[in-house]
Formats: sequence, C-alpha cells, structure tokens
Amino acid sequence: MIRPALDATALSEAVLDGQAKVTAVAQSFLERIETLEPDIQAFVSFKPLQVRLQATLHEGRGLLAGVPVGVKDIIDTADHPTQFFSPIYADHQPSRDAHVVTLLREAGALIMGKTHTTEFAYMHTGPTRNPHDLSRTPGSSSAGSAAGMAADFFAVALGTQTAGSLLKPAAYCGLFAFKPSFGLVSLEGVKPLAPSFDTVGWYGRSVRDLNLVARVLIPGFAAPEIEQRPLRLGFYRTARWDQVDPEVVHALEQAVEHLRSAGHQVSEVQLPDEFAGVFDDHQLINDCEGARSLAKEFQQHRTLLSPSTLAMFDRATATTWEQESAAKARLAALAPLLHERCQPFDAMLGPCCGIVAPQGLESTGPSDFIKFWGAFGWPQVNIPLPRTEGLLPIGLQMIGRFRDDGSLLRVAERVAADLLADRRQ
Amino acid sequence: MIRPALDATALSEAVLDGQAKVTAVAQSFLERIETLEPDIQAFVSFKPLQVRLQATLHEGRGLLAGVPVGVKDIIDTADHPTQFFSPIYADHQPSRDAHVVTLLREAGALIMGKTHTTEFAYMHTGPTRNPHDLSRTPGSSSAGSAAGMAADFFAVALGTQTAGSLLKPAAYCGLFAFKPSFGLVSLEGVKPLAPSFDTVGWYGRSVRDLNLVARVLIPGFAAPEIEQRPLRLGFYRTARWDQVDPEVVHALEQAVEHLRSAGHQVSEVQLPDEFAGVFDDHQLINDCEGARSLAKEFQQHRTLLSPSTLAMFDRATATTWEQESAAKARLAALAPLLHERCQPFDAMLGPCCGIVAPQGLESTGPSDFIKFWGAFGWPQVNIPLPRTEGLLPIGLQMIGRFRDDGSLLRVAERVAADLLADRRQ
Repeated sequence: MIRPALDATALSEAVLDGQAKVTAVAQSFLERIETLEPDIQAFVSFKPLQVRLQATLHEGRGLLAGVPVGVKDIIDTADHPTQFFSPIYADHQPSRDAHVVTLLREAGALIMGKTHTTEFAYMHTGPTRNPHDLSRTPGSSSAGSAAGMAADFFAVALGTQTAGSLLKPAAYCGLFAFKPSFGLVSLEGVKPLAPSFDTVGWYGRSVRDLNLVARVLIPGFAAPEIEQRPLRLGFYRTARWDQVDPEVVHALEQAVEHLRSAGHQVSEVQLPDEFAGVFDDHQLINDCEGARSLAKEFQQHRTLLSPSTLAMFDRATATTWEQESAAKARLAALAPLLHERCQPFDAMLGPCCGIVAPQGLESTGPSDFIKFWGAFGWPQVNIPLPRTEGLLPIGLQMIGRFRDDGSLLRVAERVAADLLADRRQ
Repeated sequence: MIRPALDATALSEAVLDGQAKVTAVAQSFLERIETLEPDIQAFVSFKPLQVRLQATLHEGRGLLAGVPVGVKDIIDTADHPTQFFSPIYADHQPSRDAHVVTLLREAGALIMGKTHTTEFAYMHTGPTRNPHDLSRTPGSSSAGSAAGMAADFFAVALGTQTAGSLLKPAAYCGLFAFKPSFGLVSLEGVKPLAPSFDTVGWYGRSVRDLNLVARVLIPGFAAPEIEQRPLRLGFYRTARWDQVDPEVVHALEQAVEHLRSAGHQVSEVQLPDEFAGVFDDHQLINDCEGARSLAKEFQQHRTLLSPSTLAMFDRATATTWEQESAAKARLAALAPLLHERCQPFDAMLGPCCGIVAPQGLESTGPSDFIKFWGAFGWPQVNIPLPRTEGLLPIGLQMIGRFRDDGSLLRVAERVAADLLADRRQ
C-alpha cells in the first residue's frame, strides 16, 4: 500500500488555508474507496452521497476541517445503522450520534461511514482483509477502521479497546494508534463490553494526528511541551516474552538500538512475579463483565450469538463473584507498584503484538502485551516500525503514566521522528 | 400518604400464584396516578394505554411479574421519549431500551412511564413535588422516581446516582433505596454525567424488594445467607456532622439506641483528617467529568443550558488537569485505608441527609453524607426511619464494603426489621 501524502493535520490546514476544497478531498477519498473496498471490506455502512452532502455543506472550519473519518460500528451514528456485527441489530438505526461522533462533526470532520467490527467488539470476526496482504486478518476488533486506514479510505478512524482491540490492528496494519487513559473519553453511545477497561481510541497517520484528535475528543486536553533532553525509556518484556516471534524480537531490538544511537537511554525494567497474573486477571474480568454487559442479548436472542461469545458466557458462569472481586483487588493492589517502577521513565516500551498479522480472517491472535497495560488503564500508543518494502508491519508499543496522556504523545512524537529519521538515512 | 399493602416481592408472588391479574394490578396503579399526578408531577412521559397494553399481553411470568416500575428520564426507552429535562432533547425518541430497561421487561415488569429528573441529572430542578408535603422538594435528581414511589404510582423505580441523586430523594421521601457498588450495573443507554461515579440504583418498598431488583439487574447476583448473631455496626459522622440538624441527630440517635437495645453493637468510627477532603474532591471530579460529558451539548446548544449547569462548566474551566488528577489520586490512596477501618463491621451507618426535605422546589440541599461513600464506589442503602405520623421522613444510610452488595442487603434487612419492630411495640 502507498502511504498517503497528507496527514489529517496537513489536510485540515490545507482546507483552512483555502488550498484544498472539502468537496475535492471527499471526492479523492471516495474514489479510492470505490476502487479498493471490494477487496478490503472495511465498511459495513457506506453512503457516498451522504459524504458528498457533508462536503458540499461544509463551512471549511474546525480542527478537523474536511478530514475524512471512519467510525467503528459499535459507536452510535444518527445517519448510519449501528449493528455491532450482530444479526440481533440488523439495520438498527440509533436516534442520536455517540458523544465522540458529535464532537468529530463539530470539529469539521467528514464521517465516511461505519467500519466493520467483531460481534459486540469481542472475538467473532467479520469479512475485513488486511491491505498489506489480503489473505491475512487486519486484527480485531477495530478491524474495518484499521484496514480502512491502511488502505487510505480516511485519514483518521475511531476504534475502541477492551483487551487489544485498538492496538492489535494498528500493529498488524502498520498504523499510529492512541488509546487514551481509561475514563477520559466519553462512552455515551458506545456499546459496553467490559466497563472496567472499555476505552475509545483512534488511528492517525502521524503522532501529531493522534494529538489533534485528542484535542477534539478530550475537551480541555493540551499536550505539554517537554524538555528536549535525551529520553529515558523503560523496556518491559512481560512474563510472556517467550511468545514473541524472532522476527518481532529482531525488529524491536533494532528499534531500541536506533533509539540508543539517537542518544536516548533505554533500560530494561523488571517487575515482581505477581505481574505474571495480570493477563489472566484481565481475561477473567473481561469475561464476567462482558457476560453482564450482554446479558440482555443473551436472555432474548441466545441463538443469534456466535460460539466465541457464548463461550465467554460459559466461562463467566463458571467464575464466582469472589474470584472476580479478587482479580479486581489484585489489579488495584499492583497499580501503585507499577506506577512506582515506571516513574523514572518518560515512557515505557514493549512489543505491541508478538506476531505479525496471521493468515486467515477468523483468528486474530493474542492481545497479551496490550492488555497488560490496559488492565491498569494507562495510555498506549502504537508506533509502526520502519520496515523493508514488502515485509508485514510490526508495532512498537509505547505506554505513558495514567492520565499523563499529553506527555506520552510528546515522547511518542520524538520516538517516531527518530525511528523514521533512521529509515531515511 | 398511605403506605401500600404489597411490596414488589408480594405483588409478583400474587401474580405468579394466579392470585392477582396483571391487568387488575395495572388498573389500580393507573387509577392512583390519575388521581394524584396533577399534584405530584412525577411523570414527564406517561401513556396509560401503553401500560394497559403491556398488562394485557403479559405472560404472568418473571421475577418482577406484573410489578409496576417508574424509570428516570435519563435512561433510554424505546417506547417513551428520553429528554433529560433539557429542551435540547425535547421529544427525543431513542431507538432502543437501555440495558436495565430490557432486563426489567424480560423479568415481567410493567414500565409505567418516564419520571422527572433534573437537567442531565445535575442540579436544575423540575416541577415534581414531595408527596409528604407538596410545598417541599422530593430531592434530586431522581425526583420523579422518588415522589412516584412515595405516592404509590409504582412499586419499584429506577434512579441514578453521581453525588446524592438516588439516596437524597429516598431520605426526603421516606423510601428504601439501593445504590449498588460502582460498576456492577450496566450503564448502556444511560446518559453519563461523571463516569467515575455514575451508578444506576433503585427504590423499593422493602429491603427484600431492593434485593429482588438486584437479582434482575445484576445478572448472577445472589445475596449470601449471613449468620444470625448480633450485628457489628460502625457509625461514622464525617467531618460535616455539624451540618446535621438537631431533628435528624435525634432521629439517628434513637435509631442507634434501638439497634443497641435489639442486641447489636454500634461503635463510633473515627477516620484520619485527610478524609475531610473527600467532599471537595468529589465535587471537583464531578465538575470536570460533567463538563467533559456534556461538552457536545455545551458546544452546540450553550444557550439552552441552565445557569447551574453553566456554572459547572465555569468551575471545570477554572480547574487544571493536574488538580483533577490529584483529586483522583487522593481518593485512590484513601480507599484501602477506608476499607481497613471499616473491615471489622458488618456495615457502616451514618446520616443520609443532614436535613429533612427543604421548602420549595428549586434547591434540594447538600448530598455530602451520601457522596462521601459514593466517592469510593461503595454500595449504599437508605432505610426510612420510623416516624410519628405527620413528621417528615428522615433516612438512615447504611454502607457496605465495595462489591459486597449481597451482605449489605442482608444486614440492611435485619436492621430495617429491628427498627420497624421497635415501632410496633
């Protein structure tokens, strides 16, 4: 896939400056979609006329003036059905936009359509293909948003993350992604899965785009300026490092090497053995909360649920209240310790996924390295590593301190610039 | 107001046994509403024909078979508008039921209508009057649900609580109320205010009704049996005890006295001085999160917002990100200490409100004693204290350990029985 010339920041500036007409921007993206969508299947609802109408009526204003955006189909929209990839909600038309969609529209974005997700943003996958290799999954559950970004169907896209649903597709599709700290972005009009973890996030073509969207979706958000000294970065492998493929290990080692040669300090971080339990605790809570969140669908339409969703109910039923409470208590007890160990660093680094996008569309691989940090609600970024033409994308995960999202984006901007500079040499 | 003969538990049993017809139940409640609603103004949307239709089609099954329920109008309903007491959403009709409404319907409840709330469940009040004294407020923001319960318009009602929105009206209207632990009940289809605190709760005519509804709205919930030994109860005054009126102090002292004479142990609990900051930290977080939650309404329809809601935006704007984070960090740091201090007790006791329902409909009084515990997400119950005929209601607040909601309900059942037994002597 060819990388786009303009990111959302440049695109909106061009619109605001009068260099680009919104109708022309819309038209160029529509043409790309019409050509490639039959292969990619990013959209579950796509209405070209509506996009043209938005462009025609556009006032040429806003932080995202004229920026085409894809919206994951677990987020309500008043002008597209919202179906959660479930036959229970076939053609279901919400009466109002989700909070985040309203804020995007207010900022001048063009809503290009609704993108494919897994059933209720859990595991059961849809038809979307990875633009880097059509025989491979784009990852899940923000599949259509990620694949559409990689195919340049829009310049920004909304996803959500409960375990690895935003960052995994970013790693597999080679995208910049940002999952803010838990609780910062409104979930009004977003279908809940596991409320302890559910977070809206987004894809962009650059770190500055991630920041631009943060300013729109987190009212009052401003990333602070940071000192231009060498960065102090912590690298944490987690207890599941043995599940990282040699190809990914190599790419990460190269990235660390490049960052060191750019003058930054990268230190290995060790955490106590108790942190090995975070993966299972996350899954247990996800199962129990997911079963409660989907209780009404289960009660009314059990036969319309996929086997993977039903399996979640089975695991939840086999889990006691006390086990769930104990898992939550363990995470709460580990949080201050994690904060203390990571405090010396400007940001943490680690693998995003242990593998490249697997073959086939049905299984999308584990999310362990992502959910480890998500379990504590910390903000996360994926940086697509520079790769030789033809190789599949691999992601570097960057993690910031809880509620210090602005610093993470500033640090990620420098890391991305240094990694990219290296590629240009 | 005359107290009803049957609670929801007895009512549903009568329906399940064939002793009561759902149509007859519906008719008796409809008649009461038609007589008293002009004075009370509990409903913002009330469709008698729709209630009769539900009753006619009823299959006579479910945990809440034939139980009339009121639903606070910040909770989406597919067959009534949902307007949040805001002109921005005049006649707004959601496309689907909130999760909790679906579960109520599945359990056989009759949805009687939508009950008045304050604007976006914040401060700007509506027309609802307190059935105990029509010149007084029923409290806010679950005003219509509480007033409708006190007027016997339904046997159960849904409310929500961010600061004191469920328990304050319970105290003012003399109702049993239960606010579950934070995070247990789905918020899908419920308008967010401050997501760190927002919780769906309910009113019932007895503690067993609170438990019955918990079984419906928290899938998998089961209150454990508890030992029949004397209870160990902690009484905590908080740093704002000086704001409790002598009348309320007296009623609480009487209740404690009665519990002691029934054989229970009630011990005064002291907490470190830092806990005096909880009230302000709660308010600060509420302001900042509330302003983010309502950012879209503020951006699009500022002139349609009430002065009290606009004042929240002013306070949020004057608060820095760091101040908000520090407030959250302080609460997180106090939580384990609170747990440790309350651990020896079966439940905690305290005032629910420091005053009886004030005169007038515009100001509903502070929520300090409620939000103190809500700040930590702990489950809360209001027990209406036995009062001499003609006196205004006063509430005893009971608080359980986080996520140990079942034990709290069991303990509350015994406390309520002992307090009531005392009145019968």
